[in-house]
Amino acid sequence: MRLNLAPEVATITASAQGEQVLELLAQDLLSKARCARLTTAHGVIDTPAFMPVGTQGSVKGVSPRELRELNAQIILGNTYHLFVRPGLDVIKHFGGLHKFINWDGPILTDSGGFQIFSLSKLRKITEDGVEFQNHVDGARAFISPEIAMEIQATLGSDIVMALDECIPYPCEYDYAAQSAEMTTRWARRCKEWREENAQRPTSNGQRSIKDAAAVASVVSADTRSLRTAHPTARQLLFGIVQGGTFEGLRKQSAQAIVELDFDGYAIGGVSVGEPEAEMMRAVESAEPFLPKDKPRYAMGLGTPPQLLEMIARGMDMFDCVLPTRLARNGTAFTDTGTLNLKNAEFARDKPPIEENCVCPACRGFSRGYIRHLVKTEEILGLRLITLHNLRFYLELMNQARAEIERGAFDQFRKTFVADYKTRDAMMIE
Amino acid sequence: MRLNLAPEVATITASAQGEQVLELLAQDLLSKARCARLTTAHGVIDTPAFMPVGTQGSVKGVSPRELRELNAQIILGNTYHLFVRPGLDVIKHFGGLHKFINWDGPILTDSGGFQIFSLSKLRKITEDGVEFQNHVDGARAFISPEIAMEIQATLGSDIVMALDECIPYPCEYDYAAQSAEMTTRWARRCKEWREENAQRPTSNGQRSIKDAAAVASVVSADTRSLRTAHPTARQLLFGIVQGGTFEGLRKQSAQAIVELDFDGYAIGGVSVGEPEAEMMRAVESAEPFLPKDKPRYAMGLGTPPQLLEMIARGMDMFDCVLPTRLARNGTAFTDTGTLNLKNAEFARDKPPIEENCVCPACRGFSRGYIRHLVKTEEILGLRLITLHNLRFYLELMNQARAEIERGAFDQFRKTFVADYKTRDAMMIE
Repeated sequence: MRLNLAPEVATITASAQGEQVLELLAQDLLSKARCARLTTAHGVIDTPAFMPVGTQGSVKGVSPRELRELNAQIILGNTYHLFVRPGLDVIKHFGGLHKFINWDGPILTDSGGFQIFSLSKLRKITEDGVEFQNHVDGARAFISPEIAMEIQATLGSDIVMALDECIPYPCEYDYAAQSAEMTTRWARRCKEWREENAQRPTSNGQRSIKDAAAVASVVSADTRSLRTAHPTARQLLFGIVQGGTFEGLRKQSAQAIVELDFDGYAIGGVSVGEPEAEMMRAVESAEPFLPKDKPRYAMGLGTPPQLLEMIARGMDMFDCVLPTRLARNGTAFTDTGTLNLKNAEFARDKPPIEENCVCPACRGFSRGYIRHLVKTEEILGLRLITLHNLRFYLELMNQARAEIERGAFDQFRKTFVADYKTRDAMMIE
Repeated sequence: MRLNLAPEVATITASAQGEQVLELLAQDLLSKARCARLTTAHGVIDTPAFMPVGTQGSVKGVSPRELRELNAQIILGNTYHLFVRPGLDVIKHFGGLHKFINWDGPILTDSGGFQIFSLSKLRKITEDGVEFQNHVDGARAFISPEIAMEIQATLGSDIVMALDECIPYPCEYDYAAQSAEMTTRWARRCKEWREENAQRPTSNGQRSIKDAAAVASVVSADTRSLRTAHPTARQLLFGIVQGGTFEGLRKQSAQAIVELDFDGYAIGGVSVGEPEAEMMRAVESAEPFLPKDKPRYAMGLGTPPQLLEMIARGMDMFDCVLPTRLARNGTAFTDTGTLNLKNAEFARDKPPIEENCVCPACRGFSRGYIRHLVKTEEILGLRLITLHNLRFYLELMNQARAEIERGAFDQFRKTFVADYKTRDAMMIE
């Protein structure tokens, strides 16, 4: 049964450049789950959508061809990692991230903020931005909201993220409040940089950096060489809601970020070690203040049940390293929970990882063979489990969309969550 | 120009079971290079042929689908490694090696002898066979010529190798002479086991082990469980010539092994650290005594120029870990030598590894991107270089066959060898 859409659900929104961005297709009646189509410069994304994580310009263990065969519609790239290696001058030399990595579908890049806070050494946060030493060779660099925009313009991502501060868990209320306010001011600067640079490209493609003089003393050679950045006209810019685990701050942050009018909205600072109930409440606190006609992205999560719970709470887009990271540890996802294929119980097991799965692993290989590959540290083992896990996450989104469209999502979610057992620890490193 | 074949070249040989084995198609006039078709239970192999090495039941980093797309016609499996992990009972449970690894093309397995001598601990060689502790968990096991045959029957390989002793370099003459004589006696026992078991299968598939009583005290549980081995009727059995770097011993060994009448002949104990000139002389010393109507396999080598030199000396089949092992170190093969893609010179290099190469790496990716993947230890980097290197070796064999057929092999070899530079050390570990 196809649901009738309420008038506001059928709204089609437009980006700052006047293009269609989000087309809402269906809305679940028993939850906030919805189906939509998000249009980007490199193609359309059906939401709810899972974005495989290509941290360093490669979804770990997987080729672009395999991603296409898995029907991945969008991948994520980590600005921080790419900024450190190979460096932006190299990616610019190759004509942007799409060409460098040979992926012609949509790419979302984060702002780099999360990794600066989680990976780099000796970081110093000021109102201007963040000075840090990278985790690879310790080189000093500086990222401001404007530089984060310029970097992502150079990468040529389809969706770029505003620079935010991702606070740890637990966090004092006062710090969380001040940080969320600074994140809003940074978001405004990202928006302003973008408006300025979309309106006033110079003839040779050079763009001004508002605070170039202020940062010149610490900005890296990579950043300094970005004077011929790629067009930003067709990039979508998402703002990020922060506020930690405090309901009031999440509401205030959402209202302030939405006030700035972005192409989409992300909820950041979740899945950073807080209990699952806190994570759900953080999203529930912000969601009512996000416009229905814009995409919503819950950053950096989660398990399969968590994704369905997030969809039920009105979230559209997800990225998570679990399917690729756990695969490298021999762990496979199934509808009834995870399997650790290192376990001796699978040594003589002839079935595939999951019956009726059509992924390249399940079409050709037994659990017993994959276990052998994992135990002997053969690369093919992690490759096969990675393909299975990515297909599992992508297929879960396909199922969610189908169930929303036929008005049965809520029951699907409840049944799936009840049947799903996490057999092995699945902590994100 | 197609060469006319001398009468003996057109001979088609038959295996012990009366099947066609080798069909000679062309013979170079200026060297001993020849083209042929070798028929096995799982398909035909065009020679000269390169066999990718699937040590532990996987060609490292590569899927069976990718091997098929590379037009690999046969792969090699290492009996020793598979014997240690997952163990023969597991492979038997899955119905043999082909089914276990999902590869339906021909497989050649070695006897396990080489790895026992190079990897295992506390090995003790007697006339009966070799007692050893494996390198993984130190478990004791025993392999005799008969057990090596039985193991390979269980694996279900298309081509099985007689058990030999592979002596190190350098080696005293007396030891080399005695060892080669024992290898001949072992070869005879392999042949006898095979004739006995091909002629007298019991109704439930059980086969006798001639010296079962003698070895029962040390044989592993894996080996003891092999009482329902796979049919050996369609397996080809190759004998192995030894003799170290001594011309007289190589001649004597070749004559003695040929006297036993195998389906094919291998030259073992080469590429074990001896100078290249010694390696060539070892092959040249044995080759004149090998029948022209049987396949000749030069074991465990070598660089691209070495393969062409071996083809010129009448060799038909090769296996080598260089294309896969060097790929994992960032080294790629090209017509003019190897490239170490870790080098900074490739950071901004837009061409593929090799122009006009049609491998999956060269069709989609720049040297600069692959260098980035290697430097950041992304698995896709070694995958792409592995595919390129395997395709390079397989294509070199295609070229060799074409040049032999048109009567231009000798010039092709000389030009290739002269143009080829090894830019980086390529020692086999």
